[in-house]
Amino acid sequence: MTATAVTVLGLGAMGSAVAERLRATGRTTTVWNRTAAKTAPHAAAGSKTAATVAAAVAASDLTLVVLLDHAAVRERLEPVAADLKGRTLVDLTTTTPNQARESAAWAAAHGIRYVDGAVMAVPAMIGTPQARLLYSGDHDAYTDALPALEALGTAEYEGADAGLAALKDMALLSAMDLMFLGYVQAIAMMRTAGTAAADTAADVEAWLAAMLPHGRGIADVIDGGTYDTGGQSVDFDRRGLASLINASREQGVRADLLEPHLKLLDELAATGRGASDWPRIIDRLAIRE
Amino acid sequence: MTATAVTVLGLGAMGSAVAERLRATGRTTTVWNRTAAKTAPHAAAGSKTAATVAAAVAASDLTLVVLLDHAAVRERLEPVAADLKGRTLVDLTTTTPNQARESAAWAAAHGIRYVDGAVMAVPAMIGTPQARLLYSGDHDAYTDALPALEALGTAEYEGADAGLAALKDMALLSAMDLMFLGYVQAIAMMRTAGTAAADTAADVEAWLAAMLPHGRGIADVIDGGTYDTGGQSVDFDRRGLASLINASREQGVRADLLEPHLKLLDELAATGRGASDWPRIIDRLAIRE
Repeated sequence: MTATAVTVLGLGAMGSAVAERLRATGRTTTVWNRTAAKTAPHAAAGSKTAATVAAAVAASDLTLVVLLDHAAVRERLEPVAADLKGRTLVDLTTTTPNQARESAAWAAAHGIRYVDGAVMAVPAMIGTPQARLLYSGDHDAYTDALPALEALGTAEYEGADAGLAALKDMALLSAMDLMFLGYVQAIAMMRTAGTAAADTAADVEAWLAAMLPHGRGIADVIDGGTYDTGGQSVDFDRRGLASLINASREQGVRADLLEPHLKLLDELAATGRGASDWPRIIDRLAIRE
Repeated sequence: MTATAVTVLGLGAMGSAVAERLRATGRTTTVWNRTAAKTAPHAAAGSKTAATVAAAVAASDLTLVVLLDHAAVRERLEPVAADLKGRTLVDLTTTTPNQARESAAWAAAHGIRYVDGAVMAVPAMIGTPQARLLYSGDHDAYTDALPALEALGTAEYEGADAGLAALKDMALLSAMDLMFLGYVQAIAMMRTAGTAAADTAADVEAWLAAMLPHGRGIADVIDGGTYDTGGQSVDFDRRGLASLINASREQGVRADLLEPHLKLLDELAATGRGASDWPRIIDRLAIRE
């Protein structure tokens, strides 16, 4: 067992990319996967294989976890808490912030150094600077693991609250998801006129690239908190949204993706906020007890 | 009355910018507005003013309409059909495709040359190449009006169906709307951890700029039409969406903006499409009779 040894639990597409990259940067790697067949190519490429999770985590001071979801992480790690004691665990599995916090609390109770990670990349990007990996939790453990983690992509530490990496991950993925839905909605509308999806996507891409910086204006209005800057109002936006929704339906396209925006605006108008700047909808997103 | 004369109906922010730009490029302009007070600064700057819509449209061969909405357009133009006969009408008012088609049918019945326009710009952009104006309808009328229209921004002709400009306008605005909602959702989630909206917006902007080109891949899957390319599946995406929704709610943020995506994916799964590529949700957007 040396400082450079790393164990990787989970050899799906992402876990495999991680293990491969660690090997490529000269690290001793030990791999484990639920179905052992997936370890074969890694063994052929020079990784050690472990028959059990306990053996896998015992092989290295640093274990990276890349499993399907939080439930799989809990199932695999709880039985090996004693084996992990005093070692560093970096969980790259996609989880919610609270799931990461749960894992951190469990780790703390068992003397395990815990860092939660979120991978903002597809497996093919692992090992390039374009792969962005967010981390939060035990800062000392993060610092010690950093030489290994930096092999995977650009590393960013978000803070001691173990949930912060997952929170930023989920926030950015939500923004991306809505942007991609924008492509789908536009493509659906344009194909009613016979326009190929690729043509619409090219148009959308150019348009969104031009509009992207206007997000800063939305943020400034929200940070300002007064919602009276004289920008587009809730009532103005309601008319605009109603037009978009009508246009979609007239073309035979469901407007389900656009409706929640109008609903939030209507809630604001119903509480006397029709003249406010439209980004005030963020206040409606707060869950009321 | 000369070939360069243009009448502008409606002097809101956009109509005013249009009239100002036409004057700046040396055209004789006549303006009309529902509340006459708004014509004063235009008169002071050299425009002729008309007391009635009939007088306004009689003053020029080309009339640009920039009113609040389609209902206002119908209300103002129907009484002056005879005055418009043989002249060219370009309606820049934001409408749905069917509203534009309705105006085109009305114009055709009255011997009026009709072009529908959609302004992809804020008023401050009028007169710059960044202002993009889409047109559809009578191609000869469009060609004749083009020297005047090109003063407003980059002109694009979409086709003889008068609804096409509005359709592309609405499709691109829908995509933009969803992208901006992505900013709002991310800002809402991150501010539960005390992050300023401006900081989140900077992060979102960089992330979306990097992800924007992936819209082409979505389009290719849709144009392919088989939904079996081995990309992210409906079932994979359902898990991801459930995580995003849970993360949002755990942080005390309503997930209303994300829920329709999961609903569409669930509909696909319920009809046995769980293994399909996720862009198949576009098929669920078709309104079924």
